[in-house]
Amino acid sequence: MLQAKYQKRGPVPQESIEAVTVEQPALKEGEVLLEILAAPINPSDVLTLTGEYGILPPLPAVGGNEGVGRVSELGAGVSGLEVGQTVLLPIGIGSWASHAVANAKGLVPLPNDADPRQLCMMTVNPPTAVLMLQQFVNLNEGDWVIQNAANSGVGGYLIQEAKRRGLKSINVVRRESALASVEGQGGDVNLVDGPDLHKRVREATGGAPVHLAIDAVGGEATNHLANCVAEGGVVVNYGMMSGEPCHVSPANIVFRDVSLKGFWLSRWFKNASKEAQGKLFGDVIKQIATGQIKSTIAAEYDVSQIKEAVAAAASGERNGKILIVPKR
Amino acid sequence: MLQAKYQKRGPVPQESIEAVTVEQPALKEGEVLLEILAAPINPSDVLTLTGEYGILPPLPAVGGNEGVGRVSELGAGVSGLEVGQTVLLPIGIGSWASHAVANAKGLVPLPNDADPRQLCMMTVNPPTAVLMLQQFVNLNEGDWVIQNAANSGVGGYLIQEAKRRGLKSINVVRRESALASVEGQGGDVNLVDGPDLHKRVREATGGAPVHLAIDAVGGEATNHLANCVAEGGVVVNYGMMSGEPCHVSPANIVFRDVSLKGFWLSRWFKNASKEAQGKLFGDVIKQIATGQIKSTIAAEYDVSQIKEAVAAAASGERNGKILIVPKR
Repeated sequence: MLQAKYQKRGPVPQESIEAVTVEQPALKEGEVLLEILAAPINPSDVLTLTGEYGILPPLPAVGGNEGVGRVSELGAGVSGLEVGQTVLLPIGIGSWASHAVANAKGLVPLPNDADPRQLCMMTVNPPTAVLMLQQFVNLNEGDWVIQNAANSGVGGYLIQEAKRRGLKSINVVRRESALASVEGQGGDVNLVDGPDLHKRVREATGGAPVHLAIDAVGGEATNHLANCVAEGGVVVNYGMMSGEPCHVSPANIVFRDVSLKGFWLSRWFKNASKEAQGKLFGDVIKQIATGQIKSTIAAEYDVSQIKEAVAAAASGERNGKILIVPKR
Repeated sequence: MLQAKYQKRGPVPQESIEAVTVEQPALKEGEVLLEILAAPINPSDVLTLTGEYGILPPLPAVGGNEGVGRVSELGAGVSGLEVGQTVLLPIGIGSWASHAVANAKGLVPLPNDADPRQLCMMTVNPPTAVLMLQQFVNLNEGDWVIQNAANSGVGGYLIQEAKRRGLKSINVVRRESALASVEGQGGDVNLVDGPDLHKRVREATGGAPVHLAIDAVGGEATNHLANCVAEGGVVVNYGMMSGEPCHVSPANIVFRDVSLKGFWLSRWFKNASKEAQGKLFGDVIKQIATGQIKSTIAAEYDVSQIKEAVAAAASGERNGKILIVPKR
């Protein structure tokens, strides 16, 4: 079996990782062998390779945090699972690989007829989008929300989730060429970022108040969003695509009572009840399986192409997610 | 009578303002004439002159927001006030003047035997310090709080208020030469700011958690404080002494759940009940009158010296407050 493995971390993420052939381990009691069908490269995976993420697995490690597999062999004593069943990979298993061995207990079965390339992105980005629209500001139908990096994975789901809830979205991207990729997603207003963003937002919304802003960029872009929210509004940061700290002017913070908070899905998982997690995942699985929500895929790579795949994911100039789809 | 008046706003605050002699207006029914005893120049006053503050009075205007006066003449129909009574000037009256005319109704009498130079600073800085230690984090005796600009007016009151409540304070200043001025104030730890602030704080506190940080500086200094607070901690900004936006790293915001909020005393006044305001001022007056809290005074100027006084207040290199104390 093939695994994308790294022994060290460093500033150029594709330099640390390489595809290695390892012997397939014998299955212990209760274990199953999974053929991995698809696994995404998320920004958090890139930050894990560079060492900038909030949790770092011990080295050496297999890259990839989420993904979808198919049961291909049952170990002794496994019941309730059949060969051929599509399952969600346990989080953090090392999903950039041709195969993985997992304990059968606790594996979440997924619809066999749904697209595994869409399902493989379900645990990180869609819950992030759904929860950021729930946890900070009480939004009602017709309310406005603004986000930047709208052409990102989370950004795309957020447009769709906002629409599903009857919210109006203002979707900001960093370059003109990215506008096209968000324009087809059903958002209400799509704009390119800039220091005058608040003026263009005001024109587009007719001055309607915006109480929630979602920031994945940092730097001056955070303050551009802070300029757009109404008095008492909240800016939620969940990413650092600019590599810079969030900037927010004291004029926004002090005189307009804008606050800056953070969202991290790992912390939500740590604190949320099993019921809340089950409900959220159930909703997301259903929406993906029925095609109600989906993410744009920029390109697919085999595990053997891991260096090119990571380099593509780390580049800001793509439209859509980079997937690892092992060749059979 | 002499007034410090400005007709325009601009980047160099002392250029806009000048001392002018105006005729003393005749008292209308219910009015009193006040001899102004003392009035401070606060950072918010400097920002009002440069046009950067959150509320700007219409032009032309007399400078000065708070101060203390003594009743020197009663208009017709005034009862319950005597000539010689020390009173708090109504907020925003234009306190940088030799005299002011005020409606007798609603004037707050102050102890005649207390130092007017201490009383004149009571409405802005002490409530700011008291409220920032109350409104954001529930602090118990023995808990730590960290602040920068600890040698400022608010900073000095905050050290004293923290001590009064049994809180431990870490007091950060921007230059070595300012350390001496905070060392006599009774704070627990006094440090000069820097990128390694969190390491020195950890050493000084033995790693005790700090849940509240108070920032009047902005720029990288905000993130230095964010580095010092525990997971879930709050950084409260109330000033922009660096002239830069607050910087906070997504690592602090996202991975450590640090949030950035703002405090503005004007908003508190707008929203707080009359009872809450009365209670707060009553406490502050008592503490100042009995010498329990006080502020360092850097220098005193006559109204005729307003340009020098404002220039001194706008300079970062002073230790203590600049006061206008009209000559008699």
